[in-house]
Amino acid sequence: MRDFSADHRWLSINTATVRKQRGIDLPLPDILEACAQRGIRAISPWRDQVHAAGLATISKLVKTHGFELSGYCRGGMFPAADAAGLKAARDDNRRALDEACELNAACLVLVVGGLPGALAGQAAHKDIALARSQVTDGIAELLEYARAQAMPLAIEPLHPMYAADRACINTLEQALDVCDLLDPVSAASTAGPRALGVAVDIYHTWWDPKLQAQIARAGEQQRVLAFHVCDWLTPTTDLLNDRGMMGDGVIDIPRIRGWVEDAGFAGYSEVEIFSTQNWWQRDCAEVLDTCMARHRSAV
Amino acid sequence: MRDFSADHRWLSINTATVRKQRGIDLPLPDILEACAQRGIRAISPWRDQVHAAGLATISKLVKTHGFELSGYCRGGMFPAADAAGLKAARDDNRRALDEACELNAACLVLVVGGLPGALAGQAAHKDIALARSQVTDGIAELLEYARAQAMPLAIEPLHPMYAADRACINTLEQALDVCDLLDPVSAASTAGPRALGVAVDIYHTWWDPKLQAQIARAGEQQRVLAFHVCDWLTPTTDLLNDRGMMGDGVIDIPRIRGWVEDAGFAGYSEVEIFSTQNWWQRDCAEVLDTCMARHRSAV
Repeated sequence: MRDFSADHRWLSINTATVRKQRGIDLPLPDILEACAQRGIRAISPWRDQVHAAGLATISKLVKTHGFELSGYCRGGMFPAADAAGLKAARDDNRRALDEACELNAACLVLVVGGLPGALAGQAAHKDIALARSQVTDGIAELLEYARAQAMPLAIEPLHPMYAADRACINTLEQALDVCDLLDPVSAASTAGPRALGVAVDIYHTWWDPKLQAQIARAGEQQRVLAFHVCDWLTPTTDLLNDRGMMGDGVIDIPRIRGWVEDAGFAGYSEVEIFSTQNWWQRDCAEVLDTCMARHRSAV
Repeated sequence: MRDFSADHRWLSINTATVRKQRGIDLPLPDILEACAQRGIRAISPWRDQVHAAGLATISKLVKTHGFELSGYCRGGMFPAADAAGLKAARDDNRRALDEACELNAACLVLVVGGLPGALAGQAAHKDIALARSQVTDGIAELLEYARAQAMPLAIEPLHPMYAADRACINTLEQALDVCDLLDPVSAASTAGPRALGVAVDIYHTWWDPKLQAQIARAGEQQRVLAFHVCDWLTPTTDLLNDRGMMGDGVIDIPRIRGWVEDAGFAGYSEVEIFSTQNWWQRDCAEVLDTCMARHRSAV
């Protein structure tokens, strides 16, 4: 297991971590500047932040600063209530993939979506099996497009509390079953990263009694494409925006990182914290400095 | 699948559903009276409600009204930070079991506990594997005591969002693995309910991609001891106390009930709703009447 205690060379900042400080949207170029000043080598930006600044501008800044992208957030949201919705999702995912390529991301992260309409509070139906079927179909279609551009797709299993409205892939086992179905590993193709893999986010997966075994399974197939960290607070006061800084919660982060590295992952540890009441109420500088310190002490 | 549309003979009320209306604790005898007036045949009371009224009083009222108990809430909370804590949990669980026997409950429901101290916001450690090990040990010990009194134990897998502070058994598969370990089914013992089984609560399990398969597995071993219903709201505004009334959320309840009945379960459908902002702000009568109506129309 790599020693993170001396530096932050393997730290990546998911830019949602400092997206809106004290109610004011922080422009992505400012976030990149603040990361560059601190010698942070990698980022993972969100599409809306990129769009607000302009893809060309961000692409240029990424090159200027020499950033790597540990991932690009995000594609997915495949299920829809009708054919028009499915087509709109397909088209938008292709645009997301094009952007990931332009930014030379390590992977396009997929938050696959749940019941159509549920995120707006009006689910079109209650058939989660149908949603899951649409997710599989959507990934299959995007995978063809992604293979042609050599951009890996990383399915991110989301915590089961998001099954209705954000992602109906909720365990690593389930995500890997989809990988096996759509991107089978032949004996001849075991070297190198897969076209389809997973993003292991400890916030979403830490509770899973099968986590260690499924990380090992992912490793056997070179499917660990990204590793995301934050912490689970007790109590957690909001289902979405009360994530903790590493070390402030109950997740045994080094243990899980050890499993992920045993599985062959040697990339960045990406910090992704949504925190309306705490970290989004502080200066960007303080948040980034804390991420760096906790990366060394608690990851 | 049984037809629930014409009556509510298979409705059970978990008494937490009307525990505190508009901020005032409702005495359990009043809840029982309101249920009896409506021809509700079964209840599942919580220990604190029973203790407040007195076990002897409740035992007598249960007999007077002719109630069945679809379960008794609850034993569990096995993990502890030290030997004294483990012993206190053991002793308290034996008392819970004695009470369940006195009330002639169908089973003692087990909410197994999580990281010691986490419920109070101060986890003693981050080793969820250790907590799970203590849970298995605790159930094993209680099972001996329970067998002697012929009181079935029902492990209730709780939603993964409670893994830290309430229950580190979070899927039906995991619960059934514990059952297999501690109460193996021999060829000679396949008839009748098990000494150790599960409570299937759709709020905790609806998201699980393996739910249908695991319910079938439970059925093969006669392990479905209880069936709890409410609904998952979108959005859900509180991790604990924002459960929905059946029909108001996104769970396909009849589909899951069908699986449970295919697995041989023919008992009560127990309504258990914690709802600070909505159902706990209404009159007990309105809540019970709504439970009866939704039992017929949405379960």
